[in-house]
Amino acid sequence: MKLQFDHERVLAVVAHPDDAELLCAGTLARAKTNGAEIGICVLCQGDKGQPDKPVKNLAATRRAEMQAAAKLLGAELFLGGFSDGELADGRPERLRLIEIFRQFRPTLALAHSPEDYHSDHRAASALAESASWSCASRGHKTKSPPLAAPPALWWMDTIHMHAFAPGFFVDISEFVAVKEKMLACHQSQLARGQDRDFSPLLDLMRLQYQARGTQSGVSAAEAFRVRLAFKRARAW
Amino acid sequence: MKLQFDHERVLAVVAHPDDAELLCAGTLARAKTNGAEIGICVLCQGDKGQPDKPVKNLAATRRAEMQAAAKLLGAELFLGGFSDGELADGRPERLRLIEIFRQFRPTLALAHSPEDYHSDHRAASALAESASWSCASRGHKTKSPPLAAPPALWWMDTIHMHAFAPGFFVDISEFVAVKEKMLACHQSQLARGQDRDFSPLLDLMRLQYQARGTQSGVSAAEAFRVRLAFKRARAW
Amino acid sequence: MKLQFDHERVLAVVAHPDDAELLCAGTLARAKTNGAEIGICVLCQGDKGQPDKPVKNLAATRRAEMQAAAKLLGAELFLGGFSDGELADGRPERLRLIEIFRQFRPTLALAHSPEDYHSDHRAASALAESASWSCASRGHKTKSPPLAAPPALWWMDTIHMHAFAPGFFVDISEFVAVKEKMLACHQSQLARGQDRDFSPLLDLMRLQYQARGTQSGVSAAEAFRVRLAFKRARAW
Amino acid sequence: MKLQFDHERVLAVVAHPDDAELLCAGTLARAKTNGAEIGICVLCQGDKGQPDKPVKNLAATRRAEMQAAAKLLGAELFLGGFSDGELADGRPERLRLIEIFRQFRPTLALAHSPEDYHSDHRAASALAESASWSCASRGHKTKSPPLAAPPALWWMDTIHMHAFAPGFFVDISEFVAVKEKMLACHQSQLARGQDRDFSPLLDLMRLQYQARGTQSGVSAAEAFRVRLAFKRARAW
Amino acid sequence: MKLQFDHERVLAVVAHPDDAELLCAGTLARAKTNGAEIGICVLCQGDKGQPDKPVKNLAATRRAEMQAAAKLLGAELFLGGFSDGELADGRPERLRLIEIFRQFRPTLALAHSPEDYHSDHRAASALAESASWSCASRGHKTKSPPLAAPPALWWMDTIHMHAFAPGFFVDISEFVAVKEKMLACHQSQLARGQDRDFSPLLDLMRLQYQARGTQSGVSAAEAFRVRLAFKRARAW
Amino acid sequence: MKLQFDHERVLAVVAHPDDAELLCAGTLARAKTNGAEIGICVLCQGDKGQPDKPVKNLAATRRAEMQAAAKLLGAELFLGGFSDGELADGRPERLRLIEIFRQFRPTLALAHSPEDYHSDHRAASALAESASWSCASRGHKTKSPPLAAPPALWWMDTIHMHAFAPGFFVDISEFVAVKEKMLACHQSQLARGQDRDFSPLLDLMRLQYQARGTQSGVSAAEAFRVRLAFKRARAW
Repeated sequence: MKLQFDHERVLAVVAHPDDAELLCAGTLARAKTNGAEIGICVLCQGDKGQPDKPVKNLAATRRAEMQAAAKLLGAELFLGGFSDGELADGRPERLRLIEIFRQFRPTLALAHSPEDYHSDHRAASALAESASWSCASRGHKTKSPPLAAPPALWWMDTIHMHAFAPGFFVDISEFVAVKEKMLACHQSQLARGQDRDFSPLLDLMRLQYQARGTQSGVSAAEAFRVRLAFKRARAW
Repeated sequence: MKLQFDHERVLAVVAHPDDAELLCAGTLARAKTNGAEIGICVLCQGDKGQPDKPVKNLAATRRAEMQAAAKLLGAELFLGGFSDGELADGRPERLRLIEIFRQFRPTLALAHSPEDYHSDHRAASALAESASWSCASRGHKTKSPPLAAPPALWWMDTIHMHAFAPGFFVDISEFVAVKEKMLACHQSQLARGQDRDFSPLLDLMRLQYQARGTQSGVSAAEAFRVRLAFKRARAW
Repeated sequence: MKLQFDHERVLAVVAHPDDAELLCAGTLARAKTNGAEIGICVLCQGDKGQPDKPVKNLAATRRAEMQAAAKLLGAELFLGGFSDGELADGRPERLRLIEIFRQFRPTLALAHSPEDYHSDHRAASALAESASWSCASRGHKTKSPPLAAPPALWWMDTIHMHAFAPGFFVDISEFVAVKEKMLACHQSQLARGQDRDFSPLLDLMRLQYQARGTQSGVSAAEAFRVRLAFKRARAW
Repeated sequence: MKLQFDHERVLAVVAHPDDAELLCAGTLARAKTNGAEIGICVLCQGDKGQPDKPVKNLAATRRAEMQAAAKLLGAELFLGGFSDGELADGRPERLRLIEIFRQFRPTLALAHSPEDYHSDHRAASALAESASWSCASRGHKTKSPPLAAPPALWWMDTIHMHAFAPGFFVDISEFVAVKEKMLACHQSQLARGQDRDFSPLLDLMRLQYQARGTQSGVSAAEAFRVRLAFKRARAW
Repeated sequence: MKLQFDHERVLAVVAHPDDAELLCAGTLARAKTNGAEIGICVLCQGDKGQPDKPVKNLAATRRAEMQAAAKLLGAELFLGGFSDGELADGRPERLRLIEIFRQFRPTLALAHSPEDYHSDHRAASALAESASWSCASRGHKTKSPPLAAPPALWWMDTIHMHAFAPGFFVDISEFVAVKEKMLACHQSQLARGQDRDFSPLLDLMRLQYQARGTQSGVSAAEAFRVRLAFKRARAW
Repeated sequence: MKLQFDHERVLAVVAHPDDAELLCAGTLARAKTNGAEIGICVLCQGDKGQPDKPVKNLAATRRAEMQAAAKLLGAELFLGGFSDGELADGRPERLRLIEIFRQFRPTLALAHSPEDYHSDHRAASALAESASWSCASRGHKTKSPPLAAPPALWWMDTIHMHAFAPGFFVDISEFVAVKEKMLACHQSQLARGQDRDFSPLLDLMRLQYQARGTQSGVSAAEAFRVRLAFKRARAW
């Protein structure tokens, strides 16, 4: 059984610079190889996650890292530009994301699970849910015209697989290398590996794709769940 | 088995002009016939849902449509006056809705399900939950005096029945005509039937009341769930 | 808001002699007062629950106690006659219960929750679910003719309210006296109050109807959930 | 987004002669068109569902009807031969089904949801779950050799969509005709349409595929959920 | 089986002056006796809950009552200072609570359940979840330095045990006296006992600790659930 | 925070010879070190899991392996003696397990989760649930006298962590060596590592204890959930 991503336009909406790598980069890489167009929207700048040896212009450094990672994937990169730890489901944030949806024109959006561990992730989840509807509503005016239809919406796995019941698994066995290479672009984040609030990220990422893989009979997988809501659930 | 609505004062709190029609108008009509008093509070103006051929003063047009629908039912109409797509669970919105509760004095409030498809629906759900408590708290000052007790609170079905586990079903077999007539009042909304983000509304409504009816052994039904919370759950 | 039980025929299907008292006797008493006909089907004999000072013919003693309790309520009593602790969801048990359904002809059946604490309760739950369908199926031959339609089915609360999410609450404030008097009939069971595997039953029962009452704004209540299944869910 | 069924061997395991039509025939037809091999295993004979005007050799009649329906689909038909209303999750039933799995060698099995409305459906669900594991275990001896690996397993929707949270939807818009033609083969069952325990089946089927379709943006769909268990969940 | 709280630093984060008494004071008292350090953070002033005979400087009165209750327990008291009924999950509130976490340096935080009955409780829950992460993130600048690691986080029971599935129970049989004495400090709140929106608090509290105790085999208990999220779930 | 197991008598009830190793051996080892007495009851003989190169008297070989593993732990071993793949929740199996409970006299029982992957696991779960109640009921006669009270009951994690929401985590960081040594005793099972229906067991076990450890902030953990039922839930 295979899910075919060709002809799709897949937009991953994440809170922080390395979240796409951790939760959906394998799926994005596979969709790209299938012929899909890929976008990654990172809503926060990554400006609060300083390593022990502080990086001077952290937001700029992280932006360059994100660009490198997106380039590896062949993805278009969209930056929300919001501050870490302060993301809210407010009107300006919604309009910003609606405009990004209208620029990329996704047929499928991937978003953080509503109950994920970080308030930025939960705000990003609510923003993506809201934008996935409003992007196609002409009453919400932004620079670009409204889309013809809302994209499908999938919730992504949570960090550490906590409290996430997978609806289905995407086989990323052949896309582990690019997923790891993308993560390696985030040097300023990886430098935090030994510090107080992060496990070494590569270990965390490997444990998760292996565990999801073992659960679904392949060497590596990513887990998702269909958002069951008007126009965002789509038959395959 | 019958639920008796007589002596109740039922207030439906919805986000948009036609939501009451879609989700609870049959129940309201039945309660009215039983002898209950009915109120409908529509929080948003319906100002963003333009049909292909734009209506000039859309909010005014939709207000007139709502009044016509409420009149058919014999319901008191309350308008929140907020803009479509921008409804928030904030202090001004809460005070506005608390005052509406205090004017109508409901013994039962019907509200959108917390996980419904649209951010306005989710905000309306949170506002109704909050107002259903605070309307009876004298610390919250509004023009009208606080109520003697919070009303009971029920969550309404979601649009398309997505991810809603019914707690119980209300038989509306004899009230389908008024439900359909009320919907027919919303001409400016129905005119959007063929456009990008709406299925023909009458089809959607019929499919839902027939499906809920078939699930519960009648020709038409509406589904609800008791909000399990202090003072809002009430024994029958 | 009131649920009207008049014209109903309510059959409570329980595992042991005092389960109806603990979980639904208030509702049965109220339904009876409303004009409903009441049946109680006790599947097990109560033959294994000896008090410290053993009762000689325990099953006979408990049968007399059940008859006294049913008489208080004005209920018809049906005895499954199975042994305590050995109830199974097997063919003979199903046929026995189908025949009881056909004799009483319920329009509403009350059954133990599928995850209740005792294997007899779980078997009784499965048997009631199965009989509530098969009683109306002419392919299952028993002495009495098949019913015209399956009854509605509600799950009852669990002992101690463990892991039971109420769908709704029935106000039994005016029926506490009869519920307590019915329990008092079960002297051989109450004699076990201090022994190894039972808390004093009256305390347990009071705590539960008070807690369910407090949750739903009355002095005493019983909690139920609609069984969401073909023909057993019914609109009110 | 499309699920590709080519190279699969799909086995639907159902309780009664017309269950595959109601719950998964569109998916089977689509998989067949994709290049998959299809099997249908009906565990019960359909011997208890007499129409008002009794059919003489009902089991034989229904067998012929099943064969006609399977032929329309190009599916291999397997008959469990058990009696209606008596299906149990016992040793002989398990061995029978293990042998059927070994004859058909599925890579994907479809089974009733564990909480469906009928005890035969629930037993069929448990049997399919068990056989989906044991078919690949050489310790369970049957006539045919064990499979190299367990098939994936999906739960099917329930009758009337009661209490079933879809994990995903399969678009069957192009396969509605064959689904309806297959149902039309079951004349002895359709003859029960007006009798006591069945709604007209075609109406029921249409309402369900339309409701699932509307929920997922197509004209007709069937809903499924991945069984999350060792070796039966498979990444796509 | 015993949970050992020694060497812990336990911070209860609640919305209103008497919430800690109702939901976790027994656990705090036991932890204190075990050798833990205890903090109570009350986010709202209790300024809106006037008894029938209004208290002049209500916020000051309630502050004195909180101090008396905290003193009984030997707990450090932190006051958020926000207005009743207006608590929001906003930036200033988060920074205030992050600073409180950094002052107390908890190893375990107790917070309201996300679905509790009052919007202040739900906001307090979101704030505690957010602060439990951000307190250890150096990007969030407050007066005190960031913590070395986030504390564990437990959700507390809800008022009236509505819709709360306990993950585990803490035996507070020996700490009922201090729990009741602490509640008795809140005279201005207890004076509301007969008024419109509160049941007598002592009755409510007793019913709840007895019901949770009976569910878990002791005379009194409090129920909690581990927050399943990155860094906040901790093995024991 | 620590759970103290001293003075407990912990009985793990599992289906197959190596299940205790996979799911709870670390916890058992820790409890033993704490001063608890440990029992392991293996209900099936392990007689159907032949490696590629068949072992002659497989049941005897596996019995010896189990004895070696139990000896490493210092646990008492109880053998149900039932055949693999045929375990049922029947009367003889229940009486056998009740007698084992009465011989070991547990204060805490660990059992498979009700929805685990294998029908033997699900039957073992139901048997343990039933025996955990009936062991203290004098109406169920077996050779040994009834216990004074039912033990507490915890559900164990599932194989591969599928569909199991942990209630809490037990830190087994210091007990990984004995867990791995115990697994190494099962040579006839490990010999199946490359065959059709098993992943290499050591890899599976390591992935699971590492994933559960990472989720709960330690290097290795096992996950459990309290069975929420009368007398089996116990406050700590």
